[in-house]
Order: sequence, then C-alpha cells, then structure tokens
Amino acid sequence: MPYYLQYLKGLWDDGKTEVSAPFIADHFGFTEIQVRKDLASVSSVQGKPKVGFRLFNLIQDIEEALGFRREHKMILVGAGSLGQSLVSYREAHKIGAVLCAVFDSNRELIGKTFSGMTVRDIRDMKAYCKENNIHMGILTVPVPKAKSACDAMVKSGIKAIWNFAQIHLSVPEGVLVQNENMTASLALLFQHLDS
Amino acid sequence: MPYYLQYLKGLWDDGKTEVSAPFIADHFGFTEIQVRKDLASVSSVQGKPKVGFRLFNLIQDIEEALGFRREHKMILVGAGSLGQSLVSYREAHKIGAVLCAVFDSNRELIGKTFSGMTVRDIRDMKAYCKENNIHMGILTVPVPKAKSACDAMVKSGIKAIWNFAQIHLSVPEGVLVQNENMTASLALLFQHLDS
Repeated sequence: MPYYLQYLKGLWDDGKTEVSAPFIADHFGFTEIQVRKDLASVSSVQGKPKVGFRLFNLIQDIEEALGFRREHKMILVGAGSLGQSLVSYREAHKIGAVLCAVFDSNRELIGKTFSGMTVRDIRDMKAYCKENNIHMGILTVPVPKAKSACDAMVKSGIKAIWNFAQIHLSVPEGVLVQNENMTASLALLFQHLDS
Repeated sequence: MPYYLQYLKGLWDDGKTEVSAPFIADHFGFTEIQVRKDLASVSSVQGKPKVGFRLFNLIQDIEEALGFRREHKMILVGAGSLGQSLVSYREAHKIGAVLCAVFDSNRELIGKTFSGMTVRDIRDMKAYCKENNIHMGILTVPVPKAKSACDAMVKSGIKAIWNFAQIHLSVPEGVLVQNENMTASLALLFQHLDS
C-alpha cells in the first residue's frame, strides 16, 4: 500500500487528476482485478468508466488507511550514532511521525543536544510517556543494552517498537516489534557483489 | 545468519569461548538440527561433544560468509536529509561498508560537507566509480528523481543498489536492488497503535 501511495502521489505531482485501474496495474505488473481489490480495501472511491479514479480522494483515503493523516507521537531510545542520524531524519515527520523526546542511559550523552533534541535520562522515560500519552518508540541502542532498554520501554507503556538493534526482542502480547535489519540488507548486497 | 552472528558476538563479549548447538537452539527457539544445518552451511568448524563450537572460529566463518571481513567500497547518491543521516551513520563501517563519495545533482548541495564528506556533482559519478572500481551504491534521492539517479548509477557500473526511495526501480539483469522501506515499517506500527 505505501508503494501505491508513492506512485499515486508521483502522478499527482505530474499534474494528473485521474487514474485508471489498468494504468496502475500496468505500472506495477499486477492484474487490473488485483489493483481494484487492493484499492477497494482502503477506499470507497469509485472509478468512473473510461476516466478512472479521482487521484486526490484516492490519495487521501490511502493516507488515512495507513495512519499518515494523524499525528503519532514517539520517543527514541539510544542517542548514539544511529539514534542521532534518525533524530536528524525529518522525512518521517511528513507522514505523521512526531519525535517528542530522546532518552539514553549514558551520562555522557544525557543533556547533549542533537538536531534540536536534548537527550534525557532513561530513568525519566516512564513518567514522560505517561504524562504525554506516548505509546510508540524507536530503539537504537547497542545490542548488549537492547533487552533492558526494550523492557524499560514496555514498562513505560510503549506498545509499538521500531527496533534497529540487530537482536530478537521478547515482548508481552499486545506489543508490536518491527525490526529494521540494516546489517542483513548490507549482507545481501555484499553477497551479490562477491558472487 | 546476521542474527546468529550478533548473538554469538554477544556471547563472546560476555567472555564465553565455546557454545553448543542446543544452547543456540534454545535461545532462538529453533531445533538443534536446524542450528547445526545453518552453521554447517557457512562454517566447517566442528563442535566437540559436550563442549560445543569454538566461538572465535564460528564468528570468523559467519563474518566471512556474510562478506563482513572484506571491505566493500560504496557511494551514496542523494545528499538530502536521509543521505546526510546515513553519511553520519558509522556502524556500517564495522562490517566492511566503506563510504567513499557522496553525489547529488542539486547545485546548492554540491561542494557542501557533511560528516567529513564533500558532496560531488552527480555528473562526475561515472568517472569516479570507474577510477575507484566501485560497484555498490546507496540511493537516497526523493522519489521523482529516483529513476534517473538509478539509471545514472547503473551506467556508472553500480551492480548493487541499497534503495531508500519509496519507489520500485527497474534495473538490468545482474543488478540487485535491495529496498529499505522505512515508510512501510512506520505504517505497520501506526496501524498496530490505531487498531
């Protein structure tokens, strides 16, 4: 669905206002039936014969379905190299991901400011999350610290964790961990080059 | 395999020198047979009865298989917000990913320096890649520029592309595109929270 969205936004930027299912199907190499089914799952916009879907409404509906039209407040845990990179990554803001605070347990990092965010003491995380009603967090601590940091996030009421540490995390039911395995991606690329 | 590696390195950091297949199997929730099969696919290290595998050799063999013990030179194309974040992300260096140059087509970015890397003109990319024998690249340009940037990378001899643009890229046979879909990850986390 994010791929449909990106494609449709591209068409909109190119000045198009309507798009037909066969046109989309052709781009992705899907069948027209598949495209109609996918779009109907998130949007009630009906395509007009020989004209197609109104792009503006379709984009709105997909963004709505993906949760990109609402603000989602989140914290970041781990202000090392990767954490600092993500703090400076402002693209996520465009789809409603609002970074509210950064935490770390390292005394040398606490109090420092990166891209306008001051690093807070991880011991204050629980109170902060409760007070600000935050349930999503990005985990960017080194592997040896990942399990304890994850546990602390769960105890702070975090229900959705974007995990950049290369480690499997055990969490209670109701908590979702989405792993971002950058090392595995690089390994695949290396193997392609070395083969 | 990257998960095995990370786990075994953790044991090594904890001072262990040997590890048994049942011990690893227990950690991942795999069968012992699965673990032995996986490890045998990349390593000829034989476990000793009642002692297990020598950790040092096992780690070396997995790193070798994943290509992490050789340097892989790469370029980055697109010096915007995400590109700048990745330039400052030094973790990749530890597994042999060596960023050699950053390119962009935007005149306002060319010549600027981020984390010690000066942005070069994308028109010089082909000559640079040929001269430095570089075949891997990271693509971090905005969606509307992604196709032309990708084509330019292919023409420059790039055979492995780490694509951060949320768009499907068509490439000739022999070129691998590994997509890193950060937006899709966020969408999954949002949906979990909204449900």
